[in-house]
Amino acid sequence: MPETGIINKGLTAGKTGNERCGAEMKKVLMMVHDGFEEVEALTTVDILRRAGCGVTVCSMTGRNVLHGSHGIDVAADAVFGHTVDEDCADIFDALVFPGGLPNAHTLRDDSRATDAANKFHEKGKLVCAICAAPCVLEKAGLLEGRRATSYPGAIDATRCLYSEEKAVKDGKVITSRGVGTALDFALAIAEELCGKQTADRVAASILHKR
Amino acid sequence: MPETGIINKGLTAGKTGNERCGAEMKKVLMMVHDGFEEVEALTTVDILRRAGCGVTVCSMTGRNVLHGSHGIDVAADAVFGHTVDEDCADIFDALVFPGGLPNAHTLRDDSRATDAANKFHEKGKLVCAICAAPCVLEKAGLLEGRRATSYPGAIDATRCLYSEEKAVKDGKVITSRGVGTALDFALAIAEELCGKQTADRVAASILHKR
Repeated sequence: MPETGIINKGLTAGKTGNERCGAEMKKVLMMVHDGFEEVEALTTVDILRRAGCGVTVCSMTGRNVLHGSHGIDVAADAVFGHTVDEDCADIFDALVFPGGLPNAHTLRDDSRATDAANKFHEKGKLVCAICAAPCVLEKAGLLEGRRATSYPGAIDATRCLYSEEKAVKDGKVITSRGVGTALDFALAIAEELCGKQTADRVAASILHKR
Repeated sequence: MPETGIINKGLTAGKTGNERCGAEMKKVLMMVHDGFEEVEALTTVDILRRAGCGVTVCSMTGRNVLHGSHGIDVAADAVFGHTVDEDCADIFDALVFPGGLPNAHTLRDDSRATDAANKFHEKGKLVCAICAAPCVLEKAGLLEGRRATSYPGAIDATRCLYSEEKAVKDGKVITSRGVGTALDFALAIAEELCGKQTADRVAASILHKR
């Protein structure tokens, strides 16, 4: 696989989708460690690119090939520490953590991920996690008193307003439950970034009932 | 990405999942050209590995990195013409074609794909396609008089018994509609290969209602 790890920040931060949403393309950063859940990660990338967002899959491992939890190797668009770094909250509009183990626990224990979650949140930007990855937001202190969900048992349900909805939005935090809710998660992010009309159009185009 | 393109046929044909289904692991071959739909392809790989199948993602391009239709590069497990070749119908239990363009049309026009579809079918093995890829089965002559589905308009609905169900099984042929039905497609294949109990268990584990 060619060395595609370095993106030109500010110019091409995030591959674009088929169309742009509004005047300015929304830019989404997905932080990924090895052991990520392939469907949760790539459904989100796919749907957001269909909605017109620029999505950057950012490897947190130092390598530009990421190993999924079901044996699928995927090329990252960027490697953290190169052109995507600590100031990512200034550049991107949303931060996404996919699930899968050990990815979600490695992200939780990686201060670059929890610091980014806090910086995005402080700047009023969207922070999103699915399956086991809401534990990253829990560690960052973003779930206290907030409506949220996760894969059953992945977070302490007594320390947030736990919901069993497929995708839960509370303020600028979106959480979801697992592979079976990945489309709903991705479409909830698309709706927040690009509007309900765009999300509904994408859902219809893939024959998914919201 | 390392050169993982060559598998040792008969020994490791298909990466395994978390468990085996029955006495013998079922082996699934997925043929892929560039421009494949990432969610359709990788949801199927993920779910079938969860069900205990060995799945081999086989590049038909001669290269072991496949380019998805939404900008995601994925490593193939094998390259057609190396250890996976014309006798694949002797080795694998099922053949799967994911959708996405130009992948589906390139597969349709690739006699190695249509020949394989016919050989699998003649041997009583499972042949499966989703979204635009049922056109491969149509070209191979497998859909005449058969209940089938596809992405709307992708096949001639007057030349089969067209259905709008999410996943349609008629004999040893399974077809499905698109990204929004990829989980149903994958679970229908898992059920056929590994039984309803296994498919239901996988569906429950990912919080998907069948």
